[in-house]
Amino acid sequence: MGTKKHNFSAGPCILPQEVFQKASEAILDFNGIGLSLLEISHRSKDFVPVMDEARAIVKRLMNLDDSYEVLYLQGGASLQFIMVPFNLLTKTGKAAYLDTGTWASNAIKEAKRWGNIDVVGSSADEKYSYIPKDYSVDSSYDYFHCTSNNTIYGTQMKSFPEVDTLKVCDMSSDIFSRQLDFSKFDLIYAGAQKNMGPAGTVLVVVKKDILGKTNRDIPAYLDYALHIKKESMFNTPPVFAVYASLLTLQHLEKNGGIAAAEERNNAKAKLLYDEIDYNPNFEGFAKKEDRSVMNVSFRLTDKSKKEKFDQMWKDAGINGLNGHRSVGGYRASLYNALPIESVQVLVDVMKAL
Amino acid sequence: MGTKKHNFSAGPCILPQEVFQKASEAILDFNGIGLSLLEISHRSKDFVPVMDEARAIVKRLMNLDDSYEVLYLQGGASLQFIMVPFNLLTKTGKAAYLDTGTWASNAIKEAKRWGNIDVVGSSADEKYSYIPKDYSVDSSYDYFHCTSNNTIYGTQMKSFPEVDTLKVCDMSSDIFSRQLDFSKFDLIYAGAQKNMGPAGTVLVVVKKDILGKTNRDIPAYLDYALHIKKESMFNTPPVFAVYASLLTLQHLEKNGGIAAAEERNNAKAKLLYDEIDYNPNFEGFAKKEDRSVMNVSFRLTDKSKKEKFDQMWKDAGINGLNGHRSVGGYRASLYNALPIESVQVLVDVMKAL
Repeated sequence: MGTKKHNFSAGPCILPQEVFQKASEAILDFNGIGLSLLEISHRSKDFVPVMDEARAIVKRLMNLDDSYEVLYLQGGASLQFIMVPFNLLTKTGKAAYLDTGTWASNAIKEAKRWGNIDVVGSSADEKYSYIPKDYSVDSSYDYFHCTSNNTIYGTQMKSFPEVDTLKVCDMSSDIFSRQLDFSKFDLIYAGAQKNMGPAGTVLVVVKKDILGKTNRDIPAYLDYALHIKKESMFNTPPVFAVYASLLTLQHLEKNGGIAAAEERNNAKAKLLYDEIDYNPNFEGFAKKEDRSVMNVSFRLTDKSKKEKFDQMWKDAGINGLNGHRSVGGYRASLYNALPIESVQVLVDVMKAL
Repeated sequence: MGTKKHNFSAGPCILPQEVFQKASEAILDFNGIGLSLLEISHRSKDFVPVMDEARAIVKRLMNLDDSYEVLYLQGGASLQFIMVPFNLLTKTGKAAYLDTGTWASNAIKEAKRWGNIDVVGSSADEKYSYIPKDYSVDSSYDYFHCTSNNTIYGTQMKSFPEVDTLKVCDMSSDIFSRQLDFSKFDLIYAGAQKNMGPAGTVLVVVKKDILGKTNRDIPAYLDYALHIKKESMFNTPPVFAVYASLLTLQHLEKNGGIAAAEERNNAKAKLLYDEIDYNPNFEGFAKKEDRSVMNVSFRLTDKSKKEKFDQMWKDAGINGLNGHRSVGGYRASLYNALPIESVQVLVDVMKAL
């Protein structure tokens, strides 16, 4: 295996080593029952408690009461781009969206098929390098939709606007990374494959009383209320992804919950941004006040050093540092499971350039 | 672990032991790269070949040429119930469906939201215990939809009608179990969690030239053509489920392909049905000529023997034998990976009752 790997992948990404260990064991023998996790019925007495606890732990970690329901669905955030308008465009058929990057703009594109979508703020004019802040959302909108963190550009909403309607947020790339008052949101969704598990499931946290208010005929799989009624088992759930997500969240809970994770994440981000700001070889991409704690986008000030730098970080066992093709440069993703030691290795390489 | 388990689960279900072993290893260290399968990018040089081969092996096993494309999507067959009419209702907005059980009838319910659906045959009148055969489908329909095997009731289509339109088939519970001329179908879909892998992905095999013929505005995730263009990576695919499906299909290919699997499956089914027919303690549920080779539904002729029989098969290490709640009795699922030795254990228990 050679050098220890330092995995800065943008997602799917590093998860706690303990999660890999337990997930690997469950595939051979789940809880000592003599069967693999993969070969048991999702309605068996062995799996139902997994789904129940995977739903319950989310409410505990987010400090949400029973007015919220938790679902593990399939199709990723991309299917949520469709389900949100389908379920939540009700009275006026109008929704307000904040355009802060590629995924936000994909969400807008999908919603436009079903209603009148107003983009109340956009940073497309400056390559999504900042978060628009000067906008308001009145009650003529059925809901407001935003994206809390932008993996590709490395920006992050540090606060969320007060709006006069439902608040919906795609938290795919920073969920469980920082404390928020989650009860200020009406619907939160997140593809699991960053802080909360492997690829293959999308978390939905929804305030129950916002549902059932549309006259639209909702296809079964797209209907949140139906999934709630069926306790997230309307059809066969993605058993392995749900189990590995549960393991990841249990690891988080055991290690101080979101508060402790936030502290560790802030320390990692500070270490790296300080080096970017100090070292004349590098510059950051995002506006300082909007910098993401999860995804650090940066580039070389002198492109001729690229070959040398690339060799150096690869030799140090660093993986997944190339920037997204639409931004170029580098992107270091500092998700919950990445140890600060890996960030130190990267910083040392940057210093040595 | 005690007695060796004989796993007759209806799905998720038994897979080859080698698949569990390799999948378990990949979660600790994928292909010796020093990283878990769960923590690498789906666009990395390590995962892209997995998706490519998982798509290619399906065409080899099914003997299909390049006029077909293979996709691994999410949302199960239930999301296909929506995607099929969304993509294939084109000219007349009419489709013909065969109603052979719970899943077929769910597919009908979803399709009715989008078009004029005619149920050309149904066995609902006799609790889905047979396959309707007396119907025809003319060219006024955009497509014909059927369900090849019915997990709950234990019936199976032994032949498929010639129709004057596109032929679409939900093969979730018997795909890769028997040789068929797959080129007679225009679209085949199958939730992976029976013969081809763990829960978490749905296979779609589609003839390319049937797409792009609707004026309907298709949401991104529901658009087959878009998934094809993106080589089944429009968004993050269910990485683990795709990999474990590939392992399962590689195991099938190595062990004689579908032809050899069919032979093994027929032998298992014969062993069990012969016992049901011979042993006065039992009777089958499905009409003989329509009996499924995959799911054998049967019941006790004398219900007072239930407690004794249940204890006997549990003591023998048998798992997953209870019938679906809508049928009752027993259901033995004989998917590809179930060894004939397990069927013999069940038959021995039946003989001993």
